[in-house]
Amino acid sequence: MNDNLREKFIAIVGAKNARVSQDDIAPYLHEWRDRWEGKSDLVLLPANTQEVSQILALATETKTPVVPQGGHTGLVGGGMPDMSGDAIILATGRMNKVRNIDTAGNTITVEAGCILQSVQEAADEAGKLFPLSLGAQGSCQIGGNLSSNAGGTGALAYGVARDLVLGLEVVLPTGEILNDLNALKKDNTGYNLRHLFIGAEGTLGIITAAVLKLFPKPKGQVTAFLALETPAAALELFQTARDFAGQSLTAFELMPRLGVEFTSKHVDGVRDPLTEPYPWYVLIEVSSGESEAHAQSLLENLLENQMEAGIVIDGAVAASVSQSKEFWHLREAMSESQKPEGGSIKHDISVPVHAIPSFMQDAEKAVLAIEPNARICAFGHLGDGNLHYNISQPVGADKQEFLAMDAVITPAVHALVLNYNGSISAEHGIGQMKRDELAEVKDPVALDLMRRIKANFDPAGIMNPNKVI
Amino acid sequence: MNDNLREKFIAIVGAKNARVSQDDIAPYLHEWRDRWEGKSDLVLLPANTQEVSQILALATETKTPVVPQGGHTGLVGGGMPDMSGDAIILATGRMNKVRNIDTAGNTITVEAGCILQSVQEAADEAGKLFPLSLGAQGSCQIGGNLSSNAGGTGALAYGVARDLVLGLEVVLPTGEILNDLNALKKDNTGYNLRHLFIGAEGTLGIITAAVLKLFPKPKGQVTAFLALETPAAALELFQTARDFAGQSLTAFELMPRLGVEFTSKHVDGVRDPLTEPYPWYVLIEVSSGESEAHAQSLLENLLENQMEAGIVIDGAVAASVSQSKEFWHLREAMSESQKPEGGSIKHDISVPVHAIPSFMQDAEKAVLAIEPNARICAFGHLGDGNLHYNISQPVGADKQEFLAMDAVITPAVHALVLNYNGSISAEHGIGQMKRDELAEVKDPVALDLMRRIKANFDPAGIMNPNKVI
Repeated sequence: MNDNLREKFIAIVGAKNARVSQDDIAPYLHEWRDRWEGKSDLVLLPANTQEVSQILALATETKTPVVPQGGHTGLVGGGMPDMSGDAIILATGRMNKVRNIDTAGNTITVEAGCILQSVQEAADEAGKLFPLSLGAQGSCQIGGNLSSNAGGTGALAYGVARDLVLGLEVVLPTGEILNDLNALKKDNTGYNLRHLFIGAEGTLGIITAAVLKLFPKPKGQVTAFLALETPAAALELFQTARDFAGQSLTAFELMPRLGVEFTSKHVDGVRDPLTEPYPWYVLIEVSSGESEAHAQSLLENLLENQMEAGIVIDGAVAASVSQSKEFWHLREAMSESQKPEGGSIKHDISVPVHAIPSFMQDAEKAVLAIEPNARICAFGHLGDGNLHYNISQPVGADKQEFLAMDAVITPAVHALVLNYNGSISAEHGIGQMKRDELAEVKDPVALDLMRRIKANFDPAGIMNPNKVI
Repeated sequence: MNDNLREKFIAIVGAKNARVSQDDIAPYLHEWRDRWEGKSDLVLLPANTQEVSQILALATETKTPVVPQGGHTGLVGGGMPDMSGDAIILATGRMNKVRNIDTAGNTITVEAGCILQSVQEAADEAGKLFPLSLGAQGSCQIGGNLSSNAGGTGALAYGVARDLVLGLEVVLPTGEILNDLNALKKDNTGYNLRHLFIGAEGTLGIITAAVLKLFPKPKGQVTAFLALETPAAALELFQTARDFAGQSLTAFELMPRLGVEFTSKHVDGVRDPLTEPYPWYVLIEVSSGESEAHAQSLLENLLENQMEAGIVIDGAVAASVSQSKEFWHLREAMSESQKPEGGSIKHDISVPVHAIPSFMQDAEKAVLAIEPNARICAFGHLGDGNLHYNISQPVGADKQEFLAMDAVITPAVHALVLNYNGSISAEHGIGQMKRDELAEVKDPVALDLMRRIKANFDPAGIMNPNKVI
């Protein structure tokens, strides 16, 4: 980029909101899992939608690549520029206002740079619930959550990020501003555009604000940590729980023994809630809009039924809020607990819910055929058909050697996923990590439509190049 | 169309599945409200997706306009060809198979030509609920429901048609088949294409099949017909009901006294459930996933609270399934009951839920300023912010003279809707009826994107021309 152009970009946000030295830029290029590398000479921190519009208009005019970046917590390299150093990073963190909270209408209007947790807190202070919830909530930004259509533990009862959005404001690659900050439940006036931008990972434009749905806060909530023999038993429990509790079933997370061992060993404050070891565990949460007693009675009836049926073989019901937090801490620590165990080959997959047990059997067989001592630590959102199918290296193996097996293990796992009509990216997205693979597995007509939309919306090809498609 | 081309089209479906005489074509050109007229010389009834694909490929090649038609129950002229007679009608009624029902996975895969009621029945026989429900359900087809993103009474608890779809099969204008018959709750592999086709009213392609969500059947359900003083009281009741019953509140329909008078007078089997007249009524339904007793206790607690607060001033709780059906019959008869009262100027609008009472005040003032003896019969889905804001002619007035006032009344009502950031088409769509108006009121950037998508997906401009955009 020549100095003249560079100065024009900087002038849009003002010098103090541009990062120009490599020292200042470094944090924007450091990706927390050390998996991707990238280069850039300029980070811009716009204050508002107008500045984003000016940046993108200039970028399209001068064919300058732009990589949007929120909290930089993504898992597929979507917020990282390539190694050419040609791209500007547009960081949304300064656009962090809650524009409006409408408690009667049950909506909150937020800017892209709001931290997810601050959106949850703003809702909570207004006596409402914003149910999107995930491990990175203390640092991820809502703009990134929407661009990647985040899932998380609340998706079971409330849907994924896409389902929580009523309206969007988006700056198009040309700098035009799409004003669709709609707060209506029903609006059939033409093509639905918002769902194109949600999940597009910043390749079609930059989401600058959104109208999100709020929900009533549950009046009662109970959590239990249950032991089971098999994933098939967990599926049986899930289906009975849905039948007993319906929409009141607000979390259903599957965990293997290995995950409980890893977290107890490596993560502060985690201990196994049960005295005996069991092969599988489920963290279940039941919420009631009526009362604490109602939530308790729903859970008690379910547990009585499922213990009698031999499905639940042991368990602990949280006796206090802090005990419930301990159960959740165990679940949420599962990702980080794998790192001290060496190399981990990870998959974020989904299959139809009822296929989870047979998929797990097939996948275990396939993985152990490749590496008989691999340690499978598959856990996650069983009720959404979504597993983090992670595989830790054999004890004492060489980390790099094991990670190199990714080249055979991932194709084997993904081939099974596709056999089950599943998805190779359930909630993390495509980014740069799965871009080549997507081109191989996606319906060719869908791919062609995606490419046509991309070319049409972003004729200069400036928006987050080489991501997704 | 020359005879050669005509024969090619007929050959795709076979002579017995083509309608070529004006007598046979007439039913496809007769629109039930006698509002729109159209001409066509050829109706094709394909048996399957492959035949639809061949028809559209030939149509694109020869620039022949194609108007898709489902149950032909739409309210905005979306399924009607224009008067040129150039368009083929592609009727989806023969593609009416339930391809698959997955009770463990809670999905049903249906072809576009399935009658909505038959989808409901198939779900019911499998012990599940398919919650999309609307007046025309005995004749409308699911393909049309999805193409128009239908709403209806079930939208309050289960969402609009869009929210009930997991996957789609679509034939593009070029004849290519998009296979996105996904049954997954979480799938982040690229741009979401299905939401573009849902609600596009057949202008971007033809939906040939869909994977729909099923829900557990409620174990208990109670209905009540309640009397209130004002729409503001109805809003208060709605908000308290949501607070008391949460997701168990499965219907909340507002009706004016005039509507009860019209239906009691003109529709067989309808009588006023209450002995005294009241200004406003709400039909409320509470469903429980637990038991009949639970549904009853939720409703009883609510009514006790709201009668004590002076919000609910009278009411009847259905004592039997047949009484509940009577309440629903009254509500569902409200549309047809307006016809015997003469001319009716209708609006399908939405505003943010909490703005309903003040919108109604403003709109009444605006309408009565134009015609002081107009009789406003506004009713509908209060909980979705969606009203059918209908206005009957003054008693004894000339029908045509009154209907001509549409030219001033509709702009006045729609201007208020836009003031409240509402929608001029909440659930019926744009079709040909509101196409010109949409071009005036829609965000210009959104309109431009819609036009670009249309031109890109349908370069020959064959798909349902002059509808929506």
